[in-house]
Amino acid sequence: MKKAIFLAALMLAATPALAQSGDNLEIIHHPNYDKSVFMPFSPAIKVKSGKMLWLAGGTALPVYHDHPHKREQVLQYLSNDLEAQVRRTMDGIMETLKAAGASPKDVVHVFIFRTRPRIGDIGRSSAVVNSYFAPYKHKPATTNMAVLELGEPEQLVEIQVVAMVDN
Amino acid sequence: MKKAIFLAALMLAATPALAQSGDNLEIIHHPNYDKSVFMPFSPAIKVKSGKMLWLAGGTALPVYHDHPHKREQVLQYLSNDLEAQVRRTMDGIMETLKAAGASPKDVVHVFIFRTRPRIGDIGRSSAVVNSYFAPYKHKPATTNMAVLELGEPEQLVEIQVVAMVDN
Amino acid sequence: MKKAIFLAALMLAATPALAQSGDNLEIIHHPNYDKSVFMPFSPAIKVKSGKMLWLAGGTALPVYHDHPHKREQVLQYLSNDLEAQVRRTMDGIMETLKAAGASPKDVVHVFIFRTRPRIGDIGRSSAVVNSYFAPYKHKPATTNMAVLELGEPEQLVEIQVVAMVDN
Repeated sequence: MKKAIFLAALMLAATPALAQSGDNLEIIHHPNYDKSVFMPFSPAIKVKSGKMLWLAGGTALPVYHDHPHKREQVLQYLSNDLEAQVRRTMDGIMETLKAAGASPKDVVHVFIFRTRPRIGDIGRSSAVVNSYFAPYKHKPATTNMAVLELGEPEQLVEIQVVAMVDN
Repeated sequence: MKKAIFLAALMLAATPALAQSGDNLEIIHHPNYDKSVFMPFSPAIKVKSGKMLWLAGGTALPVYHDHPHKREQVLQYLSNDLEAQVRRTMDGIMETLKAAGASPKDVVHVFIFRTRPRIGDIGRSSAVVNSYFAPYKHKPATTNMAVLELGEPEQLVEIQVVAMVDN
Repeated sequence: MKKAIFLAALMLAATPALAQSGDNLEIIHHPNYDKSVFMPFSPAIKVKSGKMLWLAGGTALPVYHDHPHKREQVLQYLSNDLEAQVRRTMDGIMETLKAAGASPKDVVHVFIFRTRPRIGDIGRSSAVVNSYFAPYKHKPATTNMAVLELGEPEQLVEIQVVAMVDN
């Protein structure tokens, strides 16, 4: 199952694609690095140009949601399914990027904050996040961890993104 | 009580104010977003100009404090009161911003790291943080979570800020 | 023991050194701050020039490692020794900085995420991290905390760095 996700990601990455990491970005690799190793993220990204775009931490709630959080929204959107929450979170981030004129290929760094970690969750969350960048053959620099609690006990993931947009 | 804090924040935001988000920043909103929803933070901020200012994580201890931490300082400043710790932390951040020639309205992103989370703490911490920006009608992009432990077991909050200052 | 680490760090900082914080950076201090206080980090750093370099969270695993993580690599590199893991992590970060043409003195901000916190771990991790910058008399802005879990239960530290490189 996990293998299937990774294979799917690899296949996506292998499909002929015109798009790739945005023109404002330079992917940094170590000299003579081992290309046989599957890396779901870039070790570092250098920003060559553009304007910085800083997103608030995104969640599986709609980007615009009431504060304090409404209990019925929490129950509706924060289902006990990590991958579903990651997908909803990334959908919201994609909307925000688009609103700013940015593309997934412009993303520099992604913080993935999870809760209630289970063995394999890092790979599961990472595979869903990466699927949003794979069509652009882009791999943001990423930092992925489990924290104690996010905005609500039911919230399984929060994702915070920095991107560069054209001048 | 919680409602009172939010109402106070709303009233502050509603008072006629000349000041607003700094000239270096552009607040990003989704097209046709629901303005009836109370959002204490901006979904994203685009940096148009200026120089980046990166603050160290701030705490309720004085910005300049001994290392290793002195037990008497921990007991003096890290009282078991989240809102008091957030206020002290933000006071220190305001001092540092001022030292760099930056204003609260120049803040791009705020990480709020809490510990020992209780129901409602996200709103309580957020309300205090926002009160520092409300006079400028400014809402930084924000990411708010609970981690396992900060610098000391008594530390309830750490806040890390990125801002833009004029060239 | 802890004292010895701090004394060593102080001595390093006191040795005559030609190098110091990179030309792209301006260290921000409060006016009339208390210089008698030992601060292992800068309260804030202003970026004057250069291009932003954003690293992925580094771990004690080799920078290029298989995904999903291989159990034998986890056991080989993620030994139950915080300082050893911090050292390996910083070694990897130094390699990545070098690959991007950056130096330790170009580092703006360091996030240190630890797990399984013990009293004193913040100082222990901080001392090792600082030893990489001390030869340059450089102190990045730093945020240091314990989270619930990193990529593997055995992983004790993850470090995420932002630096500026020359144009």
